[in-house]
Amino acid sequence: MTVSRTVSVELGDRSYEIAIGRDNLAEAGPAIVQATGARRVALVTVPEVGRRYAGRLSRSLRSAGVTVRRVDVPDGDKTKNLRQLGKLYEEFLDAGLDRSSAVVALGGGMVGDLAGFAAATYLRGIPFVQVPTTVLAMVDASVGGKVAVNLKQGKNLVGAFHQPRLVWVDTATLQSLPLRERRAGAAEIVKAAAIWDESFFTQLERDLGGVLDLEPEALDPALERACEIKAQVVSRDEREAGLRMLLNFGHTLAHAVETLSGYRRVLHGEAVAMGMVFAARRSVDLGLAPASAAERVEALLAAAGLPTELPEWPRGAYLKALRVDKKKQDARIRFVVLRGLGKADTVPLTPAEILPKGARRGR
Amino acid sequence: MTVSRTVSVELGDRSYEIAIGRDNLAEAGPAIVQATGARRVALVTVPEVGRRYAGRLSRSLRSAGVTVRRVDVPDGDKTKNLRQLGKLYEEFLDAGLDRSSAVVALGGGMVGDLAGFAAATYLRGIPFVQVPTTVLAMVDASVGGKVAVNLKQGKNLVGAFHQPRLVWVDTATLQSLPLRERRAGAAEIVKAAAIWDESFFTQLERDLGGVLDLEPEALDPALERACEIKAQVVSRDEREAGLRMLLNFGHTLAHAVETLSGYRRVLHGEAVAMGMVFAARRSVDLGLAPASAAERVEALLAAAGLPTELPEWPRGAYLKALRVDKKKQDARIRFVVLRGLGKADTVPLTPAEILPKGARRGR
Repeated sequence: MTVSRTVSVELGDRSYEIAIGRDNLAEAGPAIVQATGARRVALVTVPEVGRRYAGRLSRSLRSAGVTVRRVDVPDGDKTKNLRQLGKLYEEFLDAGLDRSSAVVALGGGMVGDLAGFAAATYLRGIPFVQVPTTVLAMVDASVGGKVAVNLKQGKNLVGAFHQPRLVWVDTATLQSLPLRERRAGAAEIVKAAAIWDESFFTQLERDLGGVLDLEPEALDPALERACEIKAQVVSRDEREAGLRMLLNFGHTLAHAVETLSGYRRVLHGEAVAMGMVFAARRSVDLGLAPASAAERVEALLAAAGLPTELPEWPRGAYLKALRVDKKKQDARIRFVVLRGLGKADTVPLTPAEILPKGARRGR
Repeated sequence: MTVSRTVSVELGDRSYEIAIGRDNLAEAGPAIVQATGARRVALVTVPEVGRRYAGRLSRSLRSAGVTVRRVDVPDGDKTKNLRQLGKLYEEFLDAGLDRSSAVVALGGGMVGDLAGFAAATYLRGIPFVQVPTTVLAMVDASVGGKVAVNLKQGKNLVGAFHQPRLVWVDTATLQSLPLRERRAGAAEIVKAAAIWDESFFTQLERDLGGVLDLEPEALDPALERACEIKAQVVSRDEREAGLRMLLNFGHTLAHAVETLSGYRRVLHGEAVAMGMVFAARRSVDLGLAPASAAERVEALLAAAGLPTELPEWPRGAYLKALRVDKKKQDARIRFVVLRGLGKADTVPLTPAEILPKGARRGR
């Protein structure tokens, strides 16, 4: 029994399952065939991940009667662009993919975003399967159907909503993930708990060390619950009309930090950790949440080895970065606040209200 | 009263209206604002069409309080590619388009496909309005939500389904359309009648001359009915699972003719005319339709000045072209046949069965 848990993402005729297990890549083939009906698959990955895991996944697919074309794309978010996208289309054509074929993304969020957008648009959309190999991709990128590429002007400016037919999680692939990236991924698990489920948050206060150490009895239920929460939010709001905004908790400042740092030195999850602590403190300052909520968010993230203080850049730089946030409508941003642990809400605030003079950014 | 007729395309929360009128560009602005809520618009067109009509449309939008950025793309299906797409994204960003902005496509099918796919994917999709200026775009491209770009390996290989918020038809724009293109567009009107509505077909046997001469009493009801038919088909089958295949009547051979001709010399509607006559005759030969059905299809298209015979290329060339049809599943193609005038169906046939030895291709 290598699939220990299953999360159902309920989206009508686009519903799908997230299968969570350990050392289960060798069994992915039949599950992918069942979910997609494909007899021909492009397996998109990055070299480092492909070297470790593509062989097992390909063999499993081939044993299930599938013709597999492995396509490696260069690693790094910078290659998630229109040029790589064009190359993927060429590979798909060359491999003879038709509307009944499928794209399988093996890797982190970047591979899922790029391969997913290619799948969303090739022949106006063909089936897509995610095999995430980072904590971040398992809990975040694999639920929600968001796929995208970057333009030089900014991240994820071109994209689509394209739900996978299946997400196949093998937690054993996390063993090759550096601790720093496991920690960054854990930030999204903490986020799910902070906005939705106080008892899950309490569970993480006990178990997060075990999650980072990849202990199955801590990791598997944490992945499951984080996926469930995101699935619940997305099921009720597939195209980001309202509720889904809550998933942006911590992300307003995180995007500003990423922009100002040029994406160097800081991982997405690290920026989200800083942003969540900031947003939790602002919630307290605005009288929306008790001080303990911000203290517990900060303590849990710090215990996970994540940064909790924003870099001490000038306030003007932050304001400028907030103003170019592509999600802005007019001048106000729907800033996600806590109304207590496990309970999030949005408040329309201008950048200057989000970051008032004298607001604490770092120690 | 410049909007004389309205066709509703019923697609749940993606429903929209096709407004048909004459000399109504000056009133498009408020309708576009009402349908999209946009305060900022990219008006995408080709130089020749833009020179005639973009001024009136822009003024109407500006009077309605909208900031307009006109973007010209080079004319011709060859520019419907990933490079032009990248340029459109840059223009949208430069014009400050956000998720509440809209893209308006003014022109024929090529502009609608390219601008529509850009709208479908920019920021994961922003509102889109079609202002078609060819008969073909009015009855075909503006209903169904199909948007796409070409790859060098073939047409429309990359695309999406993105429904417009509004289609605004000004039949006066057809006056600048060459007669040959009006005739080619009429082929799609005949197709709608042939697959769905014998009494409409009978009406066209009387009125098609008036349609080509742009007489309002013939043109407007023919556009309305052709749009209605396509809207009915698409409403019941938005993503081309079954019924929508019927809209491919005549298109299997048409695509082969277009491929073999390299898209030179032959317009899409002309190729469809040839393909419909062929498919109607095959339907008779297969014992599915009475001889009169094929005779009437041929006579009506000939009367409209459209070609009815396939070019006399070798059978082997046709078979090869049919085999690369991207819609093929395994070896069989779902070939659209008539079971009488106004009644279409699909039959799974191999290329060799579609075009048996000795089958009549031309006179």
